[in-house]
Amino acid sequence: MADKKLPFTKTEIEKIIEKYPTPFHIYDARAIRENVRRFLKAFSGLPEFKEYYAVKACPNPAILRILKDLGCGADCSSMAELILAERVGITGENIMFTSNDTPAAEFQKARDLGGIINLDDISHIDFLKKHAGIPEIISIRYNPGPRRAGSNVIIGNPEEAKYGFTYEQTFEGCARLRDLGARRFGLHSFIISNDIERSHYLETARMLFQLAAEIKAKTGVSIEFVNLSGGLGIPYRPDQEAVDIEALGREIAEAYDELVRPAGLHPMKIFAECGRYITGPYGCLVSTVLHKKNIYREYVGLDACMADLMRPALYGSYHHITVMGKETSPATRVYDITGSLCENNDKFAIQRELPEIEPGDIVVIHDTGAHGHAMGFNYNGKLRSAELLLEEDGSVELIRRAETLEDYFATVRF
Amino acid sequence: MADKKLPFTKTEIEKIIEKYPTPFHIYDARAIRENVRRFLKAFSGLPEFKEYYAVKACPNPAILRILKDLGCGADCSSMAELILAERVGITGENIMFTSNDTPAAEFQKARDLGGIINLDDISHIDFLKKHAGIPEIISIRYNPGPRRAGSNVIIGNPEEAKYGFTYEQTFEGCARLRDLGARRFGLHSFIISNDIERSHYLETARMLFQLAAEIKAKTGVSIEFVNLSGGLGIPYRPDQEAVDIEALGREIAEAYDELVRPAGLHPMKIFAECGRYITGPYGCLVSTVLHKKNIYREYVGLDACMADLMRPALYGSYHHITVMGKETSPATRVYDITGSLCENNDKFAIQRELPEIEPGDIVVIHDTGAHGHAMGFNYNGKLRSAELLLEEDGSVELIRRAETLEDYFATVRF
Repeated sequence: MADKKLPFTKTEIEKIIEKYPTPFHIYDARAIRENVRRFLKAFSGLPEFKEYYAVKACPNPAILRILKDLGCGADCSSMAELILAERVGITGENIMFTSNDTPAAEFQKARDLGGIINLDDISHIDFLKKHAGIPEIISIRYNPGPRRAGSNVIIGNPEEAKYGFTYEQTFEGCARLRDLGARRFGLHSFIISNDIERSHYLETARMLFQLAAEIKAKTGVSIEFVNLSGGLGIPYRPDQEAVDIEALGREIAEAYDELVRPAGLHPMKIFAECGRYITGPYGCLVSTVLHKKNIYREYVGLDACMADLMRPALYGSYHHITVMGKETSPATRVYDITGSLCENNDKFAIQRELPEIEPGDIVVIHDTGAHGHAMGFNYNGKLRSAELLLEEDGSVELIRRAETLEDYFATVRF
Repeated sequence: MADKKLPFTKTEIEKIIEKYPTPFHIYDARAIRENVRRFLKAFSGLPEFKEYYAVKACPNPAILRILKDLGCGADCSSMAELILAERVGITGENIMFTSNDTPAAEFQKARDLGGIINLDDISHIDFLKKHAGIPEIISIRYNPGPRRAGSNVIIGNPEEAKYGFTYEQTFEGCARLRDLGARRFGLHSFIISNDIERSHYLETARMLFQLAAEIKAKTGVSIEFVNLSGGLGIPYRPDQEAVDIEALGREIAEAYDELVRPAGLHPMKIFAECGRYITGPYGCLVSTVLHKKNIYREYVGLDACMADLMRPALYGSYHHITVMGKETSPATRVYDITGSLCENNDKFAIQRELPEIEPGDIVVIHDTGAHGHAMGFNYNGKLRSAELLLEEDGSVELIRRAETLEDYFATVRF
């Protein structure tokens, strides 16, 4: 059972709301730090391990600083993310630039910062050479395509994914990059998403370890690092179990011993690009109930809307909901929990069993620490909410102000 | 067959791109004006007809000004949309405020502007009374719920929609609003979406005409206007037919004669809140090909991404694609047309038959004049594109500048 406790009491969040009106996302700095330390420790059986946080999950400077201070790098995939990393002091090989359909300017910026470029396509070799030059260190993104399509341990169908080099292109790419002057090589693949079954992540590791061995055998290129990418899930539902990260760390270390050492690739570095797993459970969206409505169903209307959290509307995703002060009250009602956006899919929960809710109640939507605020839009003239950081001493910092009408109208003239 | 012609030649758009780099949305002022005139004329058989443009479809001041000059009002549903209407000079009863889960401040603003408030819920009567007072003119949004759920002419299931009053509440609401001082009444319902079968829109009209008659019979309240709302679709696919709007206008006028006159409600005003139908076909997203990629499928990567147009990624929606200068070339290739966002659903088209495409080609994605730019987000650090207006004399005006990194970082501190 996943723990759905919150890092504040009703009284504590009421005090925060006095200063910062709802809606807002609030992140738990202590829990993020503890999780990163636990995550890094879980992989400490490997010769060298590094986490490049997937910036898109929570592109906030304050969050990136916390992660940087614990030794994490940044996985960037756009100009804005590269600059965000730079401005919080994450540069050089602490940047992994994992992009696709990449504009020349972004390759140039990644090169300028000394970041590691993780090439998405074999055609990008010449494009990179032309626009930014081939760096000493380079990585290749591998898409196993039909080699994994029939597997029951992989989510989705890599054959339909726009990313990466084919199996054959991976060898060709390594050889060509070496011929063009690259000296240090990495290998990457991303074939799962929000997956809480750890064997699937282990499969990615085994697949890449085997491929690294094949690359060495066929081309002579020694892979310096394998980037296991992201995709590790979190238990959004209370009845789901979190990934046993220590077990996963051990299993990947065993796979390393089994596959990497005999191939003569030891010491090889192992990288990850987790986003959701690192911060997802340690943020929540805090909102106030504006209205109750009783028609063919019962509705509870919040002051937050899908502009603040898109996942339920977009994917039908479950996000756990706590009504502050009613944590132990029996779930006697069935509600659709809505926002005010003029779209019927603006619902945080559909037919959810909850305690009786009244206008003015504080409703907390869990697990918004990744792909929460970051995915918001301004459709229907909705403004995106603030982000707060709850520090270990109980203090609260405004780490992103709420959008204003001035922001909304900034790009037009009247 | 829908006409998928563009209002510019390859040479003309190349000239525009010299000044305004891709990606951008460009709207065809002449075609919008012609369409509005045709739309209004189609309903001229009714005693009084007014279009309140659904601002969320294309919330750009320049577009709203075009519509205002042709006599359209604005259908708003948020503070930002109310202020947008106000700032282009649409005020008073030219504003329809059709909102749900509404904050008090938005009711107050709508009242201040003299707009018509279209109440979403019976509980909002007391809420409005408390926070803004009951105005002389007021409208009720009706949700037919199970009375329409079994019908084969209605898309979706109104019983699961968060909007509106139930059948019984509609009568109760009218009587109560009259008792609280309201003197002029409207009726609204919105039960279809992007529907090109005109009989469904006609059904909304007939349903509301009948309900208006029932309200008069049961409560004595005379409905002054019926708001047919939006939902009229456009032919995104070339093999779809556009709505025969003249036929629809005639049919609604016939329904008016059949249902409204005998009920003693003539002259009753008829309103619409169309967005997509008004501007949807008259905008397009213009982009440049950055990359071609050949793995398990062939990909074409644009400099636009889902941040500029979400519908294909969100809904799997079809948007027609023209490769400039290759309009008559045979469709010899099958491509996935992608953006660079780090999500595999960032595809404008999947397995689309198109002519051979090369980097540098100008690719135009059709029918982005509604719910196009407006739905964009900044996920993955992507910046939303500019909007241009192509005027009748061939001149081009920048009506929204592209977002900058400064915009993206405006709400955080480093």
